Amino acid sequence: MPKLWTDTIEAHREAVREAALDATAALVAEHGLTGVKMSQIATKAGIGRATLYKYFPDVEAILSAWHERQIRSHLTQLTEIRDQDGDAGDRLEKVLNAYAAIQFQRARHHRHEPHGAELAALLHPGEHVAQAQHHLHAMFRDLLSEAADAGDIRDDVSPGELASYCLHALTAAGSLPSDAAAHRLVAVTLAGLRRPADPAH
Amino acid sequence: MPKLWTDTIEAHREAVREAALDATAALVAEHGLTGVKMSQIATKAGIGRATLYKYFPDVEAILSAWHERQIRSHLTQLTEIRDQDGDAGDRLEKVLNAYAAIQFQRARHHRHEPHGAELAALLHPGEHVAQAQHHLHAMFRDLLSEAADAGDIRDDVSPGELASYCLHALTAAGSLPSDAAAHRLVAVTLAGLRRPADPAH
Repeated sequence: MPKLWTDTIEAHREAVREAALDATAALVAEHGLTGVKMSQIATKAGIGRATLYKYFPDVEAILSAWHERQIRSHLTQLTEIRDQDGDAGDRLEKVLNAYAAIQFQRARHHRHEPHGAELAALLHPGEHVAQAQHHLHAMFRDLLSEAADAGDIRDDVSPGELASYCLHALTAAGSLPSDAAAHRLVAVTLAGLRRPADPAH
Repeated sequence: MPKLWTDTIEAHREAVREAALDATAALVAEHGLTGVKMSQIATKAGIGRATLYKYFPDVEAILSAWHERQIRSHLTQLTEIRDQDGDAGDRLEKVLNAYAAIQFQRARHHRHEPHGAELAALLHPGEHVAQAQHHLHAMFRDLLSEAADAGDIRDDVSPGELASYCLHALTAAGSLPSDAAAHRLVAVTLAGLRRPADPAH
């Protein structure tokens, strides 16, 4: 097959896949997890039911793919913030705030969704989630290492350990009542990263 | 029935229950979660199989009861440390260290257990886990409130929010490689609790 033709097929497949994921997300938000059927997804995505089954065997597989897309989009968002201009300390603060906001939004979304709690039970954390967690940890670790080299944060604890601290501490944003509380959480978490016994910081 | 007789029955029931939980924990540590049968548990606990079924319908129910007992014992341990003599700041540091050690030990236990990862999937977090989490949060909150009143920690963020921060940050101990790393995590977490812009702390 000529290259152009392959590209077109690939682009078409991707578009169908994306449409199915978007339709599923919308239907789950409206009806909850247990109320969504393959036929509804096909209708909402504007494709045939038989076509949908060529892409995904069942609703669970679509939800899993949707979850993977969510995680990847968060990673992209955080990486873009990390790679902005500016000194490492500022970028660190921005990335921590963005991550706390993601955790806060995610929890708020689940609270509003009557069947939200079932999602975690339904989606066995697959290889892609473990991989995304690994990427996230590496991204935080590199940024913390840069900030430590610049003298912006403590260097008596390894960047890898500090990355674990940040990622865990900020998941608390999911249990907080407001955006303002999430910001305070970031301030407290950042205070933990400061160089000890350094009155200038 | 006379009171003494009731007490004796109650004590006997409790002893049988405890023996079943201990036997299950030992068997799971040895064979993994999927390799344990009711008949093995009965033999190991030194009771009849029919008797075991009078207490628990299946292995899952025993594991769930065992999990509840674990959580309760952790809560008791932490509460005892909190209620020791001494100023609030010192007791806070001790409770944080004890909680980090629990997280570290728990994760290490699961790592050594081939079927450990399945436990979380098998045990749907029931009402008792949510309740224990609530107790844990309240215990941390009260101690943080006391420490803030004593001037040992920051008072610009509410004790409830700081409790969420501590509990989440310290779960990172489960992903750390050593006891020493868990201690460093406690030091970093404590640094986040310090009063900002106070060179004396």
